[in-house]
Amino acid sequence: MGQFRRDPLTGRWVIINTDEIKSPGDFKIDKVAKKGGPCPFCYGSENMTPPEIMAFRQNATAPNTPGWSVRVVPNKYPALRVEGDLAKEGVGMFDKMNGIGAHEVIIETPDHFREIPDLEYSDVESVVSAYKYRCLDLKKDTRLKYLLLFKNYGFSAGASLEHGHTQLIALPIVPKRVSEALKGAARYYSYKDRCVFCDMVSQELEEKERIVLENDIFLAYCPFVSRFPYETRIIPKRHLSDFASITKEEIAGFARILKDVMKKIKIVLEDPPYNVVIHTSPIDGHEWARQDYHWHCDIMPKLGKVAGFEWGSGFYINPTPPEIAAESLRGGNESKSKKAKRRA
Amino acid sequence: MGQFRRDPLTGRWVIINTDEIKSPGDFKIDKVAKKGGPCPFCYGSENMTPPEIMAFRQNATAPNTPGWSVRVVPNKYPALRVEGDLAKEGVGMFDKMNGIGAHEVIIETPDHFREIPDLEYSDVESVVSAYKYRCLDLKKDTRLKYLLLFKNYGFSAGASLEHGHTQLIALPIVPKRVSEALKGAARYYSYKDRCVFCDMVSQELEEKERIVLENDIFLAYCPFVSRFPYETRIIPKRHLSDFASITKEEIAGFARILKDVMKKIKIVLEDPPYNVVIHTSPIDGHEWARQDYHWHCDIMPKLGKVAGFEWGSGFYINPTPPEIAAESLRGGNESKSKKAKRRA
Repeated sequence: MGQFRRDPLTGRWVIINTDEIKSPGDFKIDKVAKKGGPCPFCYGSENMTPPEIMAFRQNATAPNTPGWSVRVVPNKYPALRVEGDLAKEGVGMFDKMNGIGAHEVIIETPDHFREIPDLEYSDVESVVSAYKYRCLDLKKDTRLKYLLLFKNYGFSAGASLEHGHTQLIALPIVPKRVSEALKGAARYYSYKDRCVFCDMVSQELEEKERIVLENDIFLAYCPFVSRFPYETRIIPKRHLSDFASITKEEIAGFARILKDVMKKIKIVLEDPPYNVVIHTSPIDGHEWARQDYHWHCDIMPKLGKVAGFEWGSGFYINPTPPEIAAESLRGGNESKSKKAKRRA
Repeated sequence: MGQFRRDPLTGRWVIINTDEIKSPGDFKIDKVAKKGGPCPFCYGSENMTPPEIMAFRQNATAPNTPGWSVRVVPNKYPALRVEGDLAKEGVGMFDKMNGIGAHEVIIETPDHFREIPDLEYSDVESVVSAYKYRCLDLKKDTRLKYLLLFKNYGFSAGASLEHGHTQLIALPIVPKRVSEALKGAARYYSYKDRCVFCDMVSQELEEKERIVLENDIFLAYCPFVSRFPYETRIIPKRHLSDFASITKEEIAGFARILKDVMKKIKIVLEDPPYNVVIHTSPIDGHEWARQDYHWHCDIMPKLGKVAGFEWGSGFYINPTPPEIAAESLRGGNESKSKKAKRRA
């Protein structure tokens, strides 16, 4: 029989299927296999993107030329633009306003074929630093209320280009799902006087069975109420509400656990497509001091299709209990050659 | 520049892309092409499903044999089961309970290769009548709080079998997205003393530009705040809160508009995968008399991938303004042969 589980943050119920449990081999995974070819994010194609906003560069190479290790550019086909004003107005019973905001792309490495699990820890630190710098810069625009960092890997997870990149969208409103989570967190805080995420971290550290990996600063685990199989959350163990306030030491800890968890996912699920999202406090001038919210990063491998039931209900059926997902991810250490040998 | 639009029901903002508008030919559509082959939903395979719950049959043929026109069976791999009790309990800060409920499959036709747009109106009426009868029957189980009818067409929309079928899931809780919509509708009603859906119907009938089709009883239109390109809503023009209370006359009107709209989608988007969901009032003993909620049916063609941004924010970017989508759907009348000729 399946099991309903409810998340105290969002009030969302998920059905965890405990009858027909799906293991990694049971999914028809659209394995990501990069093909290469002409790419606007490779060295020498810098003029195929809009001019760069920032880059980490060696030996004082010129902007928009090779020599960078991480490069940030505006999205060529942005959903939102910085110029103009919101021009809010009503349309009968509806509301509309102009699409003001920002839409940037963080190119994670010049190497077309390497992704976060393949990079050195120090390279991943540079990527995370670029995230931070862009957030700090965008926060200066007082029209913006929310910054969303996300990454789509593989065409079936929504990527439109192969080359490893993260997107940053800055919005003049706080999106619905974020404000729901904020309300849930505030409700919990007002009742318990504790951060709901801090309580989740404590429970996971105590029960242990859903932990994938941890270091001094961060915990990675498969949430008790996972919507998707092998969904994994990375969260600072200490209460920290604002991603953009991440310190140098925290950047190192986050880069390390992010690379290691993504490598486990790559090994265990054989290079699946995935989405990564960083959830942080909205911009309100004291987002770094918020007591009831806690930044975190969710990694969602794309193993099945989201169908009518999910769209209609906001309700998910997860065929892999997170306890089992965490157990297989914990074991995802063997090298590819070892695995190939064992199979042969 | 894009345009933000907000739905007064859910408070959701959607970005409508007005710069790079996508027309039907601009989507890489996973065209549904049925392959055929052994199928548990075809005549002669009745013993491959659990025993039927109901069927419309000709000439008093025996249950679980050929001769049916619509057949309802329990899902062979149900997410939920009828037997047992809920056994609610806490797990630290979380809640869990047993997966009690029902999960049924309505096989729409014995013909493996025909779908709703290809059926006769009277056949579609039988399908809708089967929906109604199953809802009325399941409502007798007082543990159940919500009935969700949905259909996935095409593997990339989540279908696991080719043969045309609808699913019915009965839940012991009201799912999150439904209760959000109910709250939004109640809020609107308490402020305006009018049903938010009735107001939407009035506005659409007045503005006309988003209408796809209408008849005496139903309106089909592309919502002002469409999350997905070519999303189409079918709604009774008169205030009706409960799908299961649908009358014979309304069944005929719904079957007609459902078939016609789905045919337009099939023609204009060249047989795309899609999800269909029927949203109705939760079961509370007077769902048929609810003043603030209005049943409706949403058809969502699956033309793009939902990516990290959407998962992270509950926020959608729609590349086809609904005004343009409705215009092309309205024009979706030409026969396939005409179209082929024109192209040649």
